[in-house]
Amino acid sequence: GKSSGRRMTTKDCTSIVEGLKVIYFSKIKPLEETYKFGAFFSSYLNESDFSAKPSVLLLGQYSTGKTTFIKHLLGQEYPGIHIGPEPTTDRFVVVYHGLEERRTPGNTLIVQPDKPYQGLSQYGNGFLAKFEGASCPNKLLEEISLVDTPGVLSGEKQRIERTYNFIDVCGWFAARCDLILLLFDPHKLDISDEFKQVISTLKGHDDKVRVVLNKADQVDMQQLMRVYGALMWSLGKVFRSPEVCKVYLGSFNADAPIRSDLNPAGVELFTKEQGNLLNDLYEIPQRSCDRKVNEFVKRIRAAKIHILIMGYLRRQMPAMMGKQKAQEKLLRNLSDCFAHVQREYHLPMGDFPDVNRYREILAAFDLSTFPKLRDKDIKNIEDVLSQDIPSLVRQFDNPYGGG
Amino acid sequence: GKSSGRRMTTKDCTSIVEGLKVIYFSKIKPLEETYKFGAFFSSYLNESDFSAKPSVLLLGQYSTGKTTFIKHLLGQEYPGIHIGPEPTTDRFVVVYHGLEERRTPGNTLIVQPDKPYQGLSQYGNGFLAKFEGASCPNKLLEEISLVDTPGVLSGEKQRIERTYNFIDVCGWFAARCDLILLLFDPHKLDISDEFKQVISTLKGHDDKVRVVLNKADQVDMQQLMRVYGALMWSLGKVFRSPEVCKVYLGSFNADAPIRSDLNPAGVELFTKEQGNLLNDLYEIPQRSCDRKVNEFVKRIRAAKIHILIMGYLRRQMPAMMGKQKAQEKLLRNLSDCFAHVQREYHLPMGDFPDVNRYREILAAFDLSTFPKLRDKDIKNIEDVLSQDIPSLVRQFDNPYGGG
Ligand SMILES: Nc1ncnc2c1ncn2[C@@H]1O[C@H](COP(=O)(O)OP(=O)(O)OP(=O)(O)O)[C@@H](O)[C@H]1O
Ligand SMILES: Nc1ncnc2c1ncn2[C@@H]1O[C@H](COP(=O)(O)OP(=O)(O)OP(=O)(O)O)[C@@H](O)[C@H]1O
Ligand SMILES: [Mg+2]
Ligand SMILES: [Mg+2]
Repeated sequence: GKSSGRRMTTKDCTSIVEGLKVIYFSKIKPLEETYKFGAFFSSYLNESDFSAKPSVLLLGQYSTGKTTFIKHLLGQEYPGIHIGPEPTTDRFVVVYHGLEERRTPGNTLIVQPDKPYQGLSQYGNGFLAKFEGASCPNKLLEEISLVDTPGVLSGEKQRIERTYNFIDVCGWFAARCDLILLLFDPHKLDISDEFKQVISTLKGHDDKVRVVLNKADQVDMQQLMRVYGALMWSLGKVFRSPEVCKVYLGSFNADAPIRSDLNPAGVELFTKEQGNLLNDLYEIPQRSCDRKVNEFVKRIRAAKIHILIMGYLRRQMPAMMGKQKAQEKLLRNLSDCFAHVQREYHLPMGDFPDVNRYREILAAFDLSTFPKLRDKDIKNIEDVLSQDIPSLVRQFDNPYGGG
Repeated sequence: GKSSGRRMTTKDCTSIVEGLKVIYFSKIKPLEETYKFGAFFSSYLNESDFSAKPSVLLLGQYSTGKTTFIKHLLGQEYPGIHIGPEPTTDRFVVVYHGLEERRTPGNTLIVQPDKPYQGLSQYGNGFLAKFEGASCPNKLLEEISLVDTPGVLSGEKQRIERTYNFIDVCGWFAARCDLILLLFDPHKLDISDEFKQVISTLKGHDDKVRVVLNKADQVDMQQLMRVYGALMWSLGKVFRSPEVCKVYLGSFNADAPIRSDLNPAGVELFTKEQGNLLNDLYEIPQRSCDRKVNEFVKRIRAAKIHILIMGYLRRQMPAMMGKQKAQEKLLRNLSDCFAHVQREYHLPMGDFPDVNRYREILAAFDLSTFPKLRDKDIKNIEDVLSQDIPSLVRQFDNPYGGG
């Protein structure tokens, strides 16, 4: 990050994530599959979980300048772009890097294995008809993808005409993106019920949210203060957290410079704020990489504990007779088993899964069908945690080291 | 008000309030007493209810500049003033007009019949030792009184050392004043639990609250925005109302001009905002007068209904025998009586008091002891409402008329 004085390049990030991928597919996934980790934790990782670029989600009422903001960032229009004073963007558009400019329909996007959109199929054709990809050979898009969205509407009528659950789709993107920009403009401050619901789905992701008070140059300083104060007043009530959301005031519009006629004193402020927001955006790849490493380590630690538990349970099973009775007894005393594994391998108790949920899932398996856990397997997974990942990260983490 | 193009002078206000006083003591109070209105509504008005000047209450953490603000407003120090960086003001000081500079101890203040502080005796000697009057021959004080307060503290220790209930005392003043200024400064934004409680007691009086972000010139524009945003974020949560509190940004300090080194772009804003706040203050006498007339009319309307009800009930009482039985029956069917009075005098049902509460209070009286209501009494009270008060107000309300 900026503060530590180093900045990892996107290449470094890509290399780290590539490294994680190699580790996962060669050393971890086979073990996860052997011990059915996918049934206990979360499904196995695939290509796109590693290759997906970090992404930025734009949300806001119609005409607050979401699409214009994207154009400003890219320095160009994306294929199929619509900008205008009436509600214009009528679909979710993922804007990503590609060697040529192309629009791709939602139904095609969700079956591409290298794209992280498979999960969107759950929202049905009503949504997929309003989902589109736009690729262009843009420098910024080499590092991040952008998600343009239809403006949040306040009219009941328009909301009802939607053929899909807008709130849920926003939630899906919010959970998966790296930064969420909430756009407001001085003339569109009221937070409609639908917008409130959208913001509610962001609650678990507070740390990713940035508020942009766009078109800030269109009112004088006193009005800006009123508008900004009113915005914070109501946002504080919608987000319940005591920590204040980061807000940027500015006017993100490639086609027009910041106006200085209405609020000359604001120009310097807006310029600084816009610079800060861009910095925030440029730091995404680095943070995204940190987050991926972090989540990867979390997953491996969980997998290790799972495998040790399964190995322990398998060891307690009789070779010949009374298998079912034995399994039933083991399941009854599952917390004792957990405690035993915890002591034997010096693991933090807090890292163990919920014992009841575990028991339920286990009941669907026949313990005797699992292979015995070999010391070699344990050593392998421990090496990944203590050596492979640290050395992978260290390789790119040294400001003087090669990349 | 400013918007209507006329501004009532304080003299006009004083004349109106004097007029109300004359009406009350000559025409209303005797009737109120005859029919025990005080037991049903609120106690009889006295001199100080009419003569009390409108007042402004200042609240805020220590060192946010409350006392300095008062000095700035007055253009002079009040007797006994303390200003300093540590917690300085250690008492509630009511600053009011007097021909000479004088400090008056709390115990003396609460027994003065022309001062509206009798009610404070309920907070005991612990409070009265920390309550003081300060008079000076100041022009502004001819129109409004000011209430300086000790800073709200965050330390548990200091709070415990208080010899009175700080929150309740703040609530007492808040209910009676005409404007409440909540002072913050950029370095003291955190709203302590005690402060939160103070703000909670203001909830019924939202319309009187003005927030002042004082010393705004001590940080640069970006910091100011962060500070201001954070303030609104948390205020919105403390005040639950959707309406945003009015906020003024500035630096109210007679001893130092607005600094322009840290935030040159802010100077114009602060100057404007300070002007607006002063205007808001100068409008208090007018608004206070409107409010007094308003509340007076409300009281008279309630008194009229009370007297008509009592008159009706009295009429139903037998001359000689079975008085108790008759009264019991009347009380049982009190809602029918209300409905009867309502129809007979064409009164809005919504203006009638709560029937159960009324029944309870009535039970303590012997209806037959009340005098019969004369048509003359009814005409008198109706004349007050339809002629005396309107012509009193009209006399001062005409921009071309004499005052
Ligand atoms: N920073 C800005 N300053 C002034 N005008 C702007 C700014 N950004 C956008 N506009 C104008 O506001 C209008 C709406 O812009 P845009 O279409 O980008 O908004 P949007 O949020 O994408 O709307 P929708 O939700 O309907 O897609 C357009 O007329 C655009 O030119
Ligand atoms: N507008 C201002 N700009 C800069 N400094 C100020 C301003 N107002 C007050 N100060 C300084 O802040 C300090 C505290 O001021 P003051 O005593 O008026 O605050 P207070 O809110 O009355 O505090 P307390 O609650 O302790 O009585 C003093 O040193 C004063 O000079
Ligand atoms: Mg758009
Ligand atoms: Mg003070």
